[in-house]
Amino acid sequence: MPLRLDSTQPDFEARFTDLLGAKRESSQDVNDTVSAIIADVRHRGDEAVVELTNRFDRANVTAQTLRFTADEIASAAAQVPSNVRAALQTAHDRIRAHHQKQKPEDHVYTDALGVTLGSRWTAVDAVGIYVPGGLASYPSSVLMNAVPAHVAGVGRIAMVVPTPSGEINPAILAAAEIAGITEIYRIGGAQAVAALAYGTATIPRVDKVTGPGNAYVATAKRQVFGQVGIDMIAGPSEVLVIADGSANPAWVAADLIAQAEHGAGAQSILVTTDASLADAVETEVDRQLTLLPKGDMAREGWDELGAIITVASLDEAAGLANRIASEHVELALDDPQALLRAIRHAGAIFLGHHTPEAIGDYVGGSNHVLPTARSARFASGLGVLDFMKRTSILGCTPSSLSALAEPAVTIAGVEDLDGHGRSISIRLNH
Amino acid sequence: MPLRLDSTQPDFEARFTDLLGAKRESSQDVNDTVSAIIADVRHRGDEAVVELTNRFDRANVTAQTLRFTADEIASAAAQVPSNVRAALQTAHDRIRAHHQKQKPEDHVYTDALGVTLGSRWTAVDAVGIYVPGGLASYPSSVLMNAVPAHVAGVGRIAMVVPTPSGEINPAILAAAEIAGITEIYRIGGAQAVAALAYGTATIPRVDKVTGPGNAYVATAKRQVFGQVGIDMIAGPSEVLVIADGSANPAWVAADLIAQAEHGAGAQSILVTTDASLADAVETEVDRQLTLLPKGDMAREGWDELGAIITVASLDEAAGLANRIASEHVELALDDPQALLRAIRHAGAIFLGHHTPEAIGDYVGGSNHVLPTARSARFASGLGVLDFMKRTSILGCTPSSLSALAEPAVTIAGVEDLDGHGRSISIRLNH
Repeated sequence: MPLRLDSTQPDFEARFTDLLGAKRESSQDVNDTVSAIIADVRHRGDEAVVELTNRFDRANVTAQTLRFTADEIASAAAQVPSNVRAALQTAHDRIRAHHQKQKPEDHVYTDALGVTLGSRWTAVDAVGIYVPGGLASYPSSVLMNAVPAHVAGVGRIAMVVPTPSGEINPAILAAAEIAGITEIYRIGGAQAVAALAYGTATIPRVDKVTGPGNAYVATAKRQVFGQVGIDMIAGPSEVLVIADGSANPAWVAADLIAQAEHGAGAQSILVTTDASLADAVETEVDRQLTLLPKGDMAREGWDELGAIITVASLDEAAGLANRIASEHVELALDDPQALLRAIRHAGAIFLGHHTPEAIGDYVGGSNHVLPTARSARFASGLGVLDFMKRTSILGCTPSSLSALAEPAVTIAGVEDLDGHGRSISIRLNH
Repeated sequence: MPLRLDSTQPDFEARFTDLLGAKRESSQDVNDTVSAIIADVRHRGDEAVVELTNRFDRANVTAQTLRFTADEIASAAAQVPSNVRAALQTAHDRIRAHHQKQKPEDHVYTDALGVTLGSRWTAVDAVGIYVPGGLASYPSSVLMNAVPAHVAGVGRIAMVVPTPSGEINPAILAAAEIAGITEIYRIGGAQAVAALAYGTATIPRVDKVTGPGNAYVATAKRQVFGQVGIDMIAGPSEVLVIADGSANPAWVAADLIAQAEHGAGAQSILVTTDASLADAVETEVDRQLTLLPKGDMAREGWDELGAIITVASLDEAAGLANRIASEHVELALDDPQALLRAIRHAGAIFLGHHTPEAIGDYVGGSNHVLPTARSARFASGLGVLDFMKRTSILGCTPSSLSALAEPAVTIAGVEDLDGHGRSISIRLNH
């Protein structure tokens, strides 16, 4: 049974706060293990990567076979049925078209004093994409990481994917092929992150590492941050559906189940102004779970972490949504636009009854790598800007430097940085 | 004596690589100490913050006096000479005017299929700004953090600044007053970062923490990343001057010294096509260092970490600049525009002979919080976007959902997520 809350009950605030604070991830402390792995890879390079891969992934690689050959990629991709290839191609093309609209423009101008000011955007040179192997191995995630990097203009994209017992989902390699990725290594875990960040003889280092992974991967990303850029520390997926009486309970139930089937801490919450919808959705979830092959896992997550909250108004729903700051927010309303402005913290917002979150996972065109665990309060989904950086441009003329010299030298003095002041005053009257 | 390199010498590549890898920061391992402090603040709140502050800062605060009163701020600010206040006001106004041009625009559109797609930007609700106390206590940094946050539309800005032995530079509080910051706590170190990230009875938690600090502050930021957003892990400052024969050796020398006077690992590098300029600059640095009150510290840094590199062409200089990926790059050339495009990795670029880096530290208008330690390969300087986040918008009509259903359901099948597929197919023919 999911949690049922009613915002008119006196204990609501306390119970809602508990829900917000619910621990959804087993926070394994793997800091020391990961530090040792990173140090080992920095010190011994390929030798360490090969040893660790063979041990953790029950594999049998050498430095010579760490990288997939072009033939291996092509033959794996060729195993993938043509309708799957076509679907991945459609996804790729739509993701690409949307992300092309995210490309930032340079902006350089001259102000009234004659000072040239501006921002110029350039791509990161080399990016490493981490793709999980095994259970949660998603070809769609290959596209969601690779396409914005390509659109940004990244020159080199290196992908790593662990192959437990030597196995890999061929659709992963098909997605890589469609995305134009040719540099793929059969490695994973902290050792893969370390290899990307510091480089080995076989794997040249990159400038930024993106992509989801388990606790070891997340910890390794946190530890190499600074040496390379990272995207975010991703947690379990989550959806918040805001619905009124116009919503179809079977559709809402299907969306809550789609999130819950991720397992491993995934969370589905319904907030509704309509108590009878709440009841109908709860019944529908139970019914639909019996129809689903992996229904047991989804039911476990729904029972443990799911919640249905009834509220007095849509404004109140928006207020709760901003406190939850969910990765995905569905507005299952006839008029979603009316509530859209009120939702300030969300990774992505899905409008109306015909936009199930899952369409955004694959072919909507927007990115499915989104901030989780309330980080939508401060973070954005993955996009083209994550693969670019902005350089400031500043240029003074002799006269604009003169005009700004006095306040600059004054502040330098207050900060006890006389050399700063001197570098300005030495240029005056020239 | 600074390092002298000549790109035509056979050992150049090896020596340049050594320069790139030179360790400039004593990487104290304070991980465990910081973890303990954060756990203590989470557990005991104000009590821990007060105890740690009194111990580490030799202070005598209580929970009631953690926050500066409006009177304390006003009277400290009133001690600041009027020319300093005017200079800070000029800096504020110019920083504000420039950052207003960084505000992103929402972009929502409907594609050919009828799918609504877009990006919407919103401000972070609450931000914590860390301002160092003691030696490197810079009022200009208050402005550089606070102004972009204000421009972004951040509703609440909380500032923390340690007051060792109870002392504070009044110009810090004057800058805060000019920037409109009224919530200021006299705390620092890892305990301040923990208080901002997790909140205490006196200090409500924020959503993001920005600003520079020592090893404890940097480590604390790394550890709370995820609970809150952070800006970057800042290292020692650095400048790279690219000059040809048109440069004035005395001016170039002054800029190299201005950087070196930061001490603590700051690095100044000159790359020039003109060997006689190289010699003249070296002589000038020696001469000017004798004129500077803090010349001894700057000389120490220049001798230990400074470098002068002669190259055969400006193209070659740009190539080295991209490998160094410096925080600041000065183009001391008659025609800086010609080289500008070739410099791809830099925090900020300063154009021509009349743009000393120091003008950008204070009143140029651009931000002086910039990526250090080669992180300009993947990171940008602080700006308005750091205080905002992007929400994706997706909306399907019945017909566009139908058009996209087949590829989406196909990919869901490959990913073994039948619930995802079902949430789409259940809506068809409705």
